[in-house]
Amino acid sequence: MDPRRLGEFGLIEAIRRRAGSRAGAWTRTIGDDAALLRPRPGCEIAVTVDALVEDVHFRWSTTPPRALGRKALAVSLSDLAAMGARPLGFLLVLALPRDAAPARVDAVLGGMLALARSAGCPLVGGDTVSGPCWTLSTTAFGEVPRGRALLRSGARPGHRVLVAGELGAAALGLRLLESGRAGRPAARPFVRRQLDPVPLLDAGMRLRRGRLASAAIDVSDGLVQDLGHVLDESRVGAEVHVEQLPLARGLARLAREEGLDPVTLALAGGEDYALVFCAPARGPAAGALARRLGCRVTEIGRIRRGRSLRLLRAGRALSLPGGGWDHFKAAPL
Amino acid sequence: MDPRRLGEFGLIEAIRRRAGSRAGAWTRTIGDDAALLRPRPGCEIAVTVDALVEDVHFRWSTTPPRALGRKALAVSLSDLAAMGARPLGFLLVLALPRDAAPARVDAVLGGMLALARSAGCPLVGGDTVSGPCWTLSTTAFGEVPRGRALLRSGARPGHRVLVAGELGAAALGLRLLESGRAGRPAARPFVRRQLDPVPLLDAGMRLRRGRLASAAIDVSDGLVQDLGHVLDESRVGAEVHVEQLPLARGLARLAREEGLDPVTLALAGGEDYALVFCAPARGPAAGALARRLGCRVTEIGRIRRGRSLRLLRAGRALSLPGGGWDHFKAAPL
Repeated sequence: MDPRRLGEFGLIEAIRRRAGSRAGAWTRTIGDDAALLRPRPGCEIAVTVDALVEDVHFRWSTTPPRALGRKALAVSLSDLAAMGARPLGFLLVLALPRDAAPARVDAVLGGMLALARSAGCPLVGGDTVSGPCWTLSTTAFGEVPRGRALLRSGARPGHRVLVAGELGAAALGLRLLESGRAGRPAARPFVRRQLDPVPLLDAGMRLRRGRLASAAIDVSDGLVQDLGHVLDESRVGAEVHVEQLPLARGLARLAREEGLDPVTLALAGGEDYALVFCAPARGPAAGALARRLGCRVTEIGRIRRGRSLRLLRAGRALSLPGGGWDHFKAAPL
Repeated sequence: MDPRRLGEFGLIEAIRRRAGSRAGAWTRTIGDDAALLRPRPGCEIAVTVDALVEDVHFRWSTTPPRALGRKALAVSLSDLAAMGARPLGFLLVLALPRDAAPARVDAVLGGMLALARSAGCPLVGGDTVSGPCWTLSTTAFGEVPRGRALLRSGARPGHRVLVAGELGAAALGLRLLESGRAGRPAARPFVRRQLDPVPLLDAGMRLRRGRLASAAIDVSDGLVQDLGHVLDESRVGAEVHVEQLPLARGLARLAREEGLDPVTLALAGGEDYALVFCAPARGPAAGALARRLGCRVTEIGRIRRGRSLRLLRAGRALSLPGGGWDHFKAAPL
């Protein structure tokens, strides 16, 4: 798709054809001033938006275009997963330089629309604009039965803190990409976690349907920061045992070879798109939860009274690393 | 609000405080992974997204920050107006340079949130990121009774073509700003239309409630281009009498002083955020519609068989100007 040859409306028409007409809950999609969603009775609509900006969230030198398209949608789907919502569709704002390479536009949209199909989340509208750099912004819509969404605010003292998925791999992958050491076979699984995260949609819906979680969030900015949001919204504290953090296989060794502390990667790394959730003390153990959710589940700590997050290693307090990613405090990438 | 002092999460918290807690149809807003909308029974949800990019859609040298904040939301509210939808809330993606001036951030958000309050459309979530330039992207949500939204696809041969509002003023205002001739008293109303457009939300809702329109669209890219979308989606043609176009008072004279053709401004200018709508031949006349909608209403032509748009001046065909704004074909601004 060549933006300069097609023009804005030709580009929209080409995207519309590729998106297909599978509309699900939508009575109007691309081609009106707004898309129209017909909600099912008894459901709430979850809405979330995320933006990926060139040279802030990704670099073309290290990012395959199809993976970028998938990731731009995946980060919003991960927010739906954290609410236990079923995806309904999404809007895309695509800001492109005027000289964007047609093959790159094709590949980004191809990756995004392939994930959209497999997640049952059709593209229903958007805006295409020119800009100084690539920016992909996705607004995703999901449905949950009324009053049943997983929130950040339901954690209570005594609840267990658990992780669905693994921590630290995406951050290690980013460091490997940035240091130019991503080509080794041992690096590949970590690079893939950075470039091509998989939203845990099924796990989120199963947590919600089974009433298994009192609170949940996805790990986009790092465990410490994201669990911190749960503690803030629930007005509680927590203790986390760092030996129990679910590191990906091989992470500890490769991290140390790179001069990185695996625990810091897992605590502050971000972009794992794992789910952190809380559950009452009496309830299915981590092993049983893993079978029900269809992914690795690990108990990492407990909710406590107070408002602090304590990290423990062999029962002794550990000082907090400097937090996850902050757009205005940290250096880019 | 100083992004560098506050950091990303401080900035989000400051925006959250300013947005207030007035939630309306929303059971969760800022502070969870997604906002949660509880739709009213029998309603559909209209969703639309628009992005404004620095140096593409606006220049800081000519744009007051409060007006920019209003406009960023107004363009999405205008899409809701064109569907006849009642606003419910909006999401904001705010991309800022790291060194964005705190007073500018304050003023942009102040203008946006003031319009949000007056339109009954609270800020319910979003994403704040750093980027090479300012980008404001708003996703707006509205409700309409099932099956009652105004669409682009309902125009039929014989229907009248009408405009609610006026045409050409925003384009003249842009030319005045770009040529540095915006300071004269005669220029001010046109500059205001460019910088600070008013979405015709009430007119759109009244069109829908009164079942007065068979099709509608808002004029963002220019009458010829936007009416063209109605013709495409309805699979019809139209004729438009250019003498009947609703020019703002004083537009013709000032345009000619600037060496511009007022009819071309009205046909191809864009950013008027007027509503173009179609109505059966037998129905309230323009004067009666103006009283019911609470704004200027002008009949400009008829829907015809075929697929072409014919422009007529004194009964004779006029060639089409080169269309409205296209992001990938036209020069920026």
